[in-house]
Amino acid sequence: MKTYTIGLDIGGTSSKFGIVDSQGNILEQGRMETCRNADPLDFVQRIAQVLLPLIERYGRKDFKGIGIGAPNGNFYSGCIELAPNLQWKGIVPMQKMLAEALSLPAILTNDANAAAMGEMIFGGAKGMKDFIIITLGTGLGSGIVVDGKILYGKSGIAAEMGQLIVEKDGRLCGCGRRGCLETYASATGIVKTVSLALEKGEKSSLAGVSPLTSAQITIAAEAGDKLALRSFEETGEILGLALANAVAFSSPEAIFLFGGLAHAGEFIIGPTRKAFEENLHNIYQGTVRLLPSSLVDADAAILGASALLY
Amino acid sequence: MKTYTIGLDIGGTSSKFGIVDSQGNILEQGRMETCRNADPLDFVQRIAQVLLPLIERYGRKDFKGIGIGAPNGNFYSGCIELAPNLQWKGIVPMQKMLAEALSLPAILTNDANAAAMGEMIFGGAKGMKDFIIITLGTGLGSGIVVDGKILYGKSGIAAEMGQLIVEKDGRLCGCGRRGCLETYASATGIVKTVSLALEKGEKSSLAGVSPLTSAQITIAAEAGDKLALRSFEETGEILGLALANAVAFSSPEAIFLFGGLAHAGEFIIGPTRKAFEENLHNIYQGTVRLLPSSLVDADAAILGASALLY
Repeated sequence: MKTYTIGLDIGGTSSKFGIVDSQGNILEQGRMETCRNADPLDFVQRIAQVLLPLIERYGRKDFKGIGIGAPNGNFYSGCIELAPNLQWKGIVPMQKMLAEALSLPAILTNDANAAAMGEMIFGGAKGMKDFIIITLGTGLGSGIVVDGKILYGKSGIAAEMGQLIVEKDGRLCGCGRRGCLETYASATGIVKTVSLALEKGEKSSLAGVSPLTSAQITIAAEAGDKLALRSFEETGEILGLALANAVAFSSPEAIFLFGGLAHAGEFIIGPTRKAFEENLHNIYQGTVRLLPSSLVDADAAILGASALLY
Repeated sequence: MKTYTIGLDIGGTSSKFGIVDSQGNILEQGRMETCRNADPLDFVQRIAQVLLPLIERYGRKDFKGIGIGAPNGNFYSGCIELAPNLQWKGIVPMQKMLAEALSLPAILTNDANAAAMGEMIFGGAKGMKDFIIITLGTGLGSGIVVDGKILYGKSGIAAEMGQLIVEKDGRLCGCGRRGCLETYASATGIVKTVSLALEKGEKSSLAGVSPLTSAQITIAAEAGDKLALRSFEETGEILGLALANAVAFSSPEAIFLFGGLAHAGEFIIGPTRKAFEENLHNIYQGTVRLLPSSLVDADAAILGASALLY
């Protein structure tokens, strides 16, 4: 008997989905804009329109359900709660909405927790019982695995490392507070770092580029642009310190970097590793590795979300 | 059949020990100086001299063993590893040394993890599956309980929150790095805060007091001394922010404050709670309580250490 699952990764900008078989093969996949407006029902209706025909085509009775990775997704309540990077406000009962729209069982968790499950089942964290995954996208997400299990905590929304305050009275965050890690260490964060320097009149090949993206900053860094290179260094310095502090918390075997900004490769991983090693307490030296994710982003998010059903 | 355990809490300054029965009653207890010199064997010999007659008096065959809480104690290796607040340097195999000296089974963990076990079994954390305990003594220790179990991580020495770097290029720590939380938020930290202000010529009833202790700063605060009060506020501000960040990590149901500096009561808990609430992400509002430990310090440390054997 064949068994299919749907993996859905809700991102700050776009959402990815796939039909996954029991061996972890993605048979079909697609993506769509997440928030066209403030109404989450608009998203649910658009995605149901795409998924329902696929469910019928593969055979509804062979589907276990849909696994959903979402920013600020609460595993316990099945809701997306006060996500700073989405137009949807308040508490969005996305698990219930999708279960009803598709008439299938649904499970929801943080998008980064889903990525962690993907890394644990299909990626570089196979066999590890203690690790952290950091997703560097529009924001910064994290999944913390302790003793082989996702850390959910009392609230169901533990491991929000993007929301660690790392700079007193720092940059304004979508959450309303100042100095959160993701205002510096994310695609949005590095764009802000470059923009602020350009506003101050700093010379760079990035001057006038609009809209400015982390991909363009990477291209500029490859061409040796000083501002682009320095922005990666500053970003890595802040991220590396935060990761060294994370080790003093959960003492993982490895920390995986994942997502859009991680595509900048050594430009971001190099300075992050340098700051990580400089700031790591000597009792942890040699116990923890800083690694790029071994999975293709889109696949990992879909596979991780789908793995929630196993 | 009666069953006894020995609980031993090794502190930065002094160590406490007790004979505990299976109902959690402390039948005998005592304390002694931890480090008279750099040789841990000196400590082991001194404590064996006190404990061996007690073991014989209560009946050796009725003893399960000795549980040891120690700064930088590694549950996996049984060693005290590079403890910044002890004169003993390097890796000290204290579990093995005490097991041999007493001819009893021995288990060792971090002193703060032992305090967490005491809080979980005998104190305010009864029935909680996710909580954090912060011990404010010579340094700052922490025990993190996730899903009902102490968080040990890959290395066995997770949850070293005193070693979180909270101030870039901040105060020099015993670990050799700068800006660690415990250089500010600990008995030693607040003494430093007051000393630095006095060196700058700030007026205070604490001027000339030698040696200056956190207990004296508390007495001065009770008498309305402005410097003492402000030092508690500054300490609480740093600690409260660190605890708000800790919630974004493990999302506990409660954080317990424990140990010497916590005796300052509202002077320290008030400003800590204020900063904690100001900095806590709104997704965690109402999910977590900041509480004083419900156990008497000396008892909790002894009971926690002894509970390691159950």
